[in-house]
Amino acid sequence: MIFETVRSEALAHFSYVVGDEDAGVCAVIDPRRDVEVYLDIARQANVRITGILETHIHADYVSGSLELAARTGAPIYLSAAGEYGFEHVPVRGGDELAFGAYTLRVIETPGHTPEHVCFLISGGQSAAGPWGLFTGDTLFAGEVGRPDLLGKEQEVGLARQLYDTLFETVLPLGDEIIIYPAHGEGSPCGANIGARMRSTIGYERLHSKNLQAQSREAFVEAVLAEQTPAPRYYPRMKQVNAAGPRVLGRLPDVPLLDADRFEREMQQGGALVLDARDKLAFGGAHVEGAWNIGLDGSFPLWVGWFVEDPETRLLLVLPGADDLHAAVTELLSVGYENIGGALLGGMDGWNEAGKPFRGAPQMSVHALRKHVENGSNLQILDVRREATFAEGHVEGAVNIWLPELPENLDRLDRDRPVAAYCTTGYRSSIAASILQNSGFPDVRTVPGSMVAWQAAGYPVTTCD
Amino acid sequence: MIFETVRSEALAHFSYVVGDEDAGVCAVIDPRRDVEVYLDIARQANVRITGILETHIHADYVSGSLELAARTGAPIYLSAAGEYGFEHVPVRGGDELAFGAYTLRVIETPGHTPEHVCFLISGGQSAAGPWGLFTGDTLFAGEVGRPDLLGKEQEVGLARQLYDTLFETVLPLGDEIIIYPAHGEGSPCGANIGARMRSTIGYERLHSKNLQAQSREAFVEAVLAEQTPAPRYYPRMKQVNAAGPRVLGRLPDVPLLDADRFEREMQQGGALVLDARDKLAFGGAHVEGAWNIGLDGSFPLWVGWFVEDPETRLLLVLPGADDLHAAVTELLSVGYENIGGALLGGMDGWNEAGKPFRGAPQMSVHALRKHVENGSNLQILDVRREATFAEGHVEGAVNIWLPELPENLDRLDRDRPVAAYCTTGYRSSIAASILQNSGFPDVRTVPGSMVAWQAAGYPVTTCD
Amino acid sequence: MIFETVRSEALAHFSYVVGDEDAGVCAVIDPRRDVEVYLDIARQANVRITGILETHIHADYVSGSLELAARTGAPIYLSAAGEYGFEHVPVRGGDELAFGAYTLRVIETPGHTPEHVCFLISGGQSAAGPWGLFTGDTLFAGEVGRPDLLGKEQEVGLARQLYDTLFETVLPLGDEIIIYPAHGEGSPCGANIGARMRSTIGYERLHSKNLQAQSREAFVEAVLAEQTPAPRYYPRMKQVNAAGPRVLGRLPDVPLLDADRFEREMQQGGALVLDARDKLAFGGAHVEGAWNIGLDGSFPLWVGWFVEDPETRLLLVLPGADDLHAAVTELLSVGYENIGGALLGGMDGWNEAGKPFRGAPQMSVHALRKHVENGSNLQILDVRREATFAEGHVEGAVNIWLPELPENLDRLDRDRPVAAYCTTGYRSSIAASILQNSGFPDVRTVPGSMVAWQAAGYPVTTCD
Amino acid sequence: MIFETVRSEALAHFSYVVGDEDAGVCAVIDPRRDVEVYLDIARQANVRITGILETHIHADYVSGSLELAARTGAPIYLSAAGEYGFEHVPVRGGDELAFGAYTLRVIETPGHTPEHVCFLISGGQSAAGPWGLFTGDTLFAGEVGRPDLLGKEQEVGLARQLYDTLFETVLPLGDEIIIYPAHGEGSPCGANIGARMRSTIGYERLHSKNLQAQSREAFVEAVLAEQTPAPRYYPRMKQVNAAGPRVLGRLPDVPLLDADRFEREMQQGGALVLDARDKLAFGGAHVEGAWNIGLDGSFPLWVGWFVEDPETRLLLVLPGADDLHAAVTELLSVGYENIGGALLGGMDGWNEAGKPFRGAPQMSVHALRKHVENGSNLQILDVRREATFAEGHVEGAVNIWLPELPENLDRLDRDRPVAAYCTTGYRSSIAASILQNSGFPDVRTVPGSMVAWQAAGYPVTTCD
Repeated sequence: MIFETVRSEALAHFSYVVGDEDAGVCAVIDPRRDVEVYLDIARQANVRITGILETHIHADYVSGSLELAARTGAPIYLSAAGEYGFEHVPVRGGDELAFGAYTLRVIETPGHTPEHVCFLISGGQSAAGPWGLFTGDTLFAGEVGRPDLLGKEQEVGLARQLYDTLFETVLPLGDEIIIYPAHGEGSPCGANIGARMRSTIGYERLHSKNLQAQSREAFVEAVLAEQTPAPRYYPRMKQVNAAGPRVLGRLPDVPLLDADRFEREMQQGGALVLDARDKLAFGGAHVEGAWNIGLDGSFPLWVGWFVEDPETRLLLVLPGADDLHAAVTELLSVGYENIGGALLGGMDGWNEAGKPFRGAPQMSVHALRKHVENGSNLQILDVRREATFAEGHVEGAVNIWLPELPENLDRLDRDRPVAAYCTTGYRSSIAASILQNSGFPDVRTVPGSMVAWQAAGYPVTTCD
Repeated sequence: MIFETVRSEALAHFSYVVGDEDAGVCAVIDPRRDVEVYLDIARQANVRITGILETHIHADYVSGSLELAARTGAPIYLSAAGEYGFEHVPVRGGDELAFGAYTLRVIETPGHTPEHVCFLISGGQSAAGPWGLFTGDTLFAGEVGRPDLLGKEQEVGLARQLYDTLFETVLPLGDEIIIYPAHGEGSPCGANIGARMRSTIGYERLHSKNLQAQSREAFVEAVLAEQTPAPRYYPRMKQVNAAGPRVLGRLPDVPLLDADRFEREMQQGGALVLDARDKLAFGGAHVEGAWNIGLDGSFPLWVGWFVEDPETRLLLVLPGADDLHAAVTELLSVGYENIGGALLGGMDGWNEAGKPFRGAPQMSVHALRKHVENGSNLQILDVRREATFAEGHVEGAVNIWLPELPENLDRLDRDRPVAAYCTTGYRSSIAASILQNSGFPDVRTVPGSMVAWQAAGYPVTTCD
Repeated sequence: MIFETVRSEALAHFSYVVGDEDAGVCAVIDPRRDVEVYLDIARQANVRITGILETHIHADYVSGSLELAARTGAPIYLSAAGEYGFEHVPVRGGDELAFGAYTLRVIETPGHTPEHVCFLISGGQSAAGPWGLFTGDTLFAGEVGRPDLLGKEQEVGLARQLYDTLFETVLPLGDEIIIYPAHGEGSPCGANIGARMRSTIGYERLHSKNLQAQSREAFVEAVLAEQTPAPRYYPRMKQVNAAGPRVLGRLPDVPLLDADRFEREMQQGGALVLDARDKLAFGGAHVEGAWNIGLDGSFPLWVGWFVEDPETRLLLVLPGADDLHAAVTELLSVGYENIGGALLGGMDGWNEAGKPFRGAPQMSVHALRKHVENGSNLQILDVRREATFAEGHVEGAVNIWLPELPENLDRLDRDRPVAAYCTTGYRSSIAASILQNSGFPDVRTVPGSMVAWQAAGYPVTTCD
Repeated sequence: MIFETVRSEALAHFSYVVGDEDAGVCAVIDPRRDVEVYLDIARQANVRITGILETHIHADYVSGSLELAARTGAPIYLSAAGEYGFEHVPVRGGDELAFGAYTLRVIETPGHTPEHVCFLISGGQSAAGPWGLFTGDTLFAGEVGRPDLLGKEQEVGLARQLYDTLFETVLPLGDEIIIYPAHGEGSPCGANIGARMRSTIGYERLHSKNLQAQSREAFVEAVLAEQTPAPRYYPRMKQVNAAGPRVLGRLPDVPLLDADRFEREMQQGGALVLDARDKLAFGGAHVEGAWNIGLDGSFPLWVGWFVEDPETRLLLVLPGADDLHAAVTELLSVGYENIGGALLGGMDGWNEAGKPFRGAPQMSVHALRKHVENGSNLQILDVRREATFAEGHVEGAVNIWLPELPENLDRLDRDRPVAAYCTTGYRSSIAASILQNSGFPDVRTVPGSMVAWQAAGYPVTTCD
């Protein structure tokens, strides 16, 4: 059989290709927007893509279903409980979709969203019963789906539905069934998704914290309590995916702009410079005004947090010439299509054109420790989540969660230097760029951050 | 976490890389001989390989443990119940090997072999208990291990041990645990391994045919009854792996031989020509005396069946210039290291040098049907397994299982034409080459074979 | 500097990327339709494509200029002496196009076509004068351009212009100048193009056969005499390129068709099955009615010879699943855009569906020799060019040049067997498929053909 | 024909594969140590490597001839005028080596070295005379070879020989002949090698500055005058290549070392940390004591300049996990085989372990300009060549050519800050790391350097 998991690391998203090479057919479940990967898998396996399935209307990425349908002619199967602005085949609980020897049975699983469905797979040699469940965002390894994404009015109702779905529909399917979720560790689609890519119904029944709830209401309360705010771009994704995203056909050709043209483009209103390089290179020198959101981390997620208008014209500073494809793919994956260009020659091109640049000084945990011990006018900024901060932070640090930093700049004194830290330094470099762009004259970041601080054996302060 | 399954398709072998990118370490479980794949995975993930684990002494391929140890310096962990001719770290039931946040606990699981161990994995975010079992050849998706590989004297004893291992050790680990076996569908290491790459203990407990046995003796009887003869090279692998295979360092450089040199090499005693092309190209023209074992199928397995002396000098005719790497890798994977060369320019090189060639005529199922209907002196040879033959074959066909064909040529009349078929035509082309090389003057193969016969709606005969 | 030669092997076409990485710019000269290669080169080199240059209106492939302009926004520079149906920048002799430190000077070179221009390059460190000439189809390594492609009425006039261009414009540029032509050995755009990819003006002045002509008229006579008929699709390319080819944006998604659908598509009127596999595999078994034009040879050229209507719906049988991209690219390169699908699973898919197939028996030169020596009713068909035939052929062979075979079938007796040969067997397999499709019941091909015949030491007959 | 130029960018080295696919053979000329590239080319072209040719004993890289001979069994052809410590076939002027239709004729060309030979190629369709010359280090595009590498005693004699070779042997071969040199722009094997990859004898005769010399003595004087000191590792290469380099078989497996182990290895005597990252990332943070020699520039050359003992144990900090292969290949190419390890996780691994780091502040040309205009105690260091400095530099700058910096530190005042610049900033970052490691407390580099300075329109001072 064909069973491929496509991992989109930046969003911790999993999609699946499932098929039967003897019958020459396969299905794609929850495809991402960059669909070449599915076409390649099918071509290599010598099968046709004959069905595109979605578990629900996704909130964290632009769905690739329409794109893939345009490339293959395959029908898109969507829950009949949803409303969509494009052609599809509605499916309902109990419907069965056959792909050669394999059957995907639709299971209605409202909770994460009202229209959510899961697909129960059976078939293949020596398989007497169903053996896998594509759970979408209903059940992850180590965590349940979050029911709060549609807003405060609906979250309690959805949380109750999720409880019923899990306890009355999913768990009864059998402990022996492997679950194939749509997300892995690090995705904000679940509060504490585990490191394993998959799990089983039995494992989750036994060990998932929220599945140990004593009552429906206890479940509702606990699940809603553990959620952190959803990334700001999530509601937009819902709209885009319900209406039907624009079909791209292929990756757009983003122009390389030499330093002069790049500078002119910057001066046009509404442009934003994204510097996707490593934090240390950004620290060395960067274009003034650039935001440092490294391509080596959760790039699309943080762009989604901070760039509210999807029509914003983005100008890119990239680590290397080869990174353009990845950067553009990631931006498209969360719906940013107005990419004005990338800096020709990267930061060297800028520097060799004699353009002004700025640095972002790096402060070691040892230097930070001295400030703490000796006292100084340095403001220490911790941009991690409140709960993480509470578990242990550098003495004297101010906690402003990174997504909320732009609205909370007045909690910091512009006349004093600031040192930002997070867990490893990725987010604190974003924070430093925000502070610099907001006029803070003396901003430092701490590479290694709390991981380094603790490796160095320095004391942490907890909140209690 | 790092969790990669390395699929070696030709032998339906799975090996695993499991590790913790935060700690920078990983383990490799049951590595194959071509170890570049593990080095690449580790390099990409920015981790070191710090442990090499074997579930047992493998019978179907040359282990890559020594090779990988030579490349990485990592220790090889082997069951203390086995005997080995090389340096290793013996492990016993209950031992725990840590790789960052993940722990692999040794479980003693005699049955498939006396020294067999499994590894129970736990650890990682949101994982409160062990969640996976690397089962080696103890338990597959849909099948149990075969206990008969060490010979008739031991098979009953091992089958009983296997029963105890499964029912007393493995199943009690919990229905919720995912199993990661060493083999998939098509491997002769299990009678009926399923098409899924993995399963769960619960699923196997519920559905695996042999785990439904009413008693230990019923299990022993059923499991031993279903086994087909093991490939002839298996005992040799056991010896090689126990003694310690030769460390290669890298793939050997196999010379390309022009037609003249190839012909001279053929004329040296003891050489064997392996034509690894597609059956239809072989049918078009091939070097007289060549065996057609296609690289697009179970190439190493069939070479292992037929080439008894591993020192045999092999001369290769390949589909394309790019296939040399794959062919050499596959041959080394089953211990053939004496590869004399590959034909320069492939079959075109041979033909353009004006060397004599031979064809292998292809007979369609429609032509075959006419022979059956009208009667003729055509002998129809079915080279599938006896049980498959019994379930349905072409009327009048003689059944000789392919591995036993060389010893049973006297069951066919050399003065009459022969048409060979199997399931799809891959094995019947091997059969045709054997017959040609044995002096049968008129041999045809049936591409599509039984699959085509049935697709055409022609009747099958069963044995009862 | 950036200087990349892009070799499109099937058509023996060379295009060039020339640029200055310090200035971040480059030009593309005579681009092919599959423009990803240029975009990749530019991206790797971190430069922008800022100019697209054509030496003339090409006759042998669909130009990629419009495609590349659509992807990059770069202007297309075309000779002012031509007429085109799309936006471009006209250039005239003496115009200079700058790409950083490098300058391309336009040289008017009518002859091959009236509007032909060459580009004389100068610039770069330690380069005091012009050092290279992009000659298009004016001057190749070992050969001059052919002036006969625009038809009988114009060929003498163009040949005279070519003489003047060569002797009065090109040769005086200096012996020291390297020439970079648009074609290499095997292209029908020149009668005897040499094996070297490039040459110098001095070398051609000294050694090119036609440049030794004693007079303009002697030149005209000799050049026109040596031309073989141009491939039938050439005039169509001229029209397409003058009007402006359709911009594709990306490779179309060609569907895989299972055997049933493939068969139904075949039965629709106007479809043509192209079997792009190796001649021996085709010989083993093929779909009845298929033409064997191997992807491993001059595939687009021979399709262009035989498929007169570019709207013909083509159905493909491919060597492997990975070959679809290459086959589609080659077909598009000569303007076939109506590709109905490719056979799912290739020929195995067909056979396993129980569809009828046909073989094409292969005859060795030794068997052929016996027919010649002993006499037989076998018709021997030599499909090489007349001049090649005259230099040496198999005794008794009938010569029909392959492109003219369809119109000359009545020169062969359908009631007698036919054995076709060429130089190595590629073209004779095309011939065999034509004969089979025309109802000849007994057709054989001779793999290795004349190369094998001569390697075997068999006698050849000459015409004198 | 097969004609491939293998460009090794870091050393601006060209090697060549020349062969005849019809005959199935090829030659490799002046191979580098990483020979996989030649094996790949031969495999793709379906030919055997049947000859390995060297033009002379190279001074700038470890020859790959022995390595390639060990992999292929092909003979190594070397000038009979040299002495070598390994098996080879001596060749003399007039000897001809045939590779199918192509012949390489040995031409004795002493001058760059006493034993130097060139290879004159002829053959192939439509090629009536020799058409190319593999010139090694005798004649480049735009420059002649340097005759001073064997030391002061021999340089005049060799320069005279070079004159005779060029004027009496090479130029008379004919203006029309293309030259294929062993080096391109940027190689220290010639003073001013041009940007073109190749040239012609005629072009060089007309335009090469040194070939315009009025007399032998004028030539000798001019050629010797223009040479800059050869990289310090050159004499070592000569010895290694004459004796025969160690055959590696494959790339060594360099261990990844976590930060603790890396630190311990640093503390062992004699280790050197090479930080091969981009200068800006190095500027952000680096391991104290590291040398910044960027992999994106002339990495092996600068390592060769500064690391005198080839047995020095090197510890690597790399840009990315994928760069290990390239870094190791480059180090081996100039004979550094004692590579102790690479930092696991790169600089992030170091920082997250809480190890101390250091930055290297970047100064813009605008800030530098202010220092110049306003006066300050900043020392400005120009590390370019003396001649380049003389043509234009920043007012007040001290010129110390980078290779001579370690011996000239006393020309700078340790108590004052230093700003280093070069042409673009690559070399000034090396300089900054040298100064830091020598105890200078305040060192800045100027990214963009003179290119930026001039782009900004700032004035330059010349020496006259």
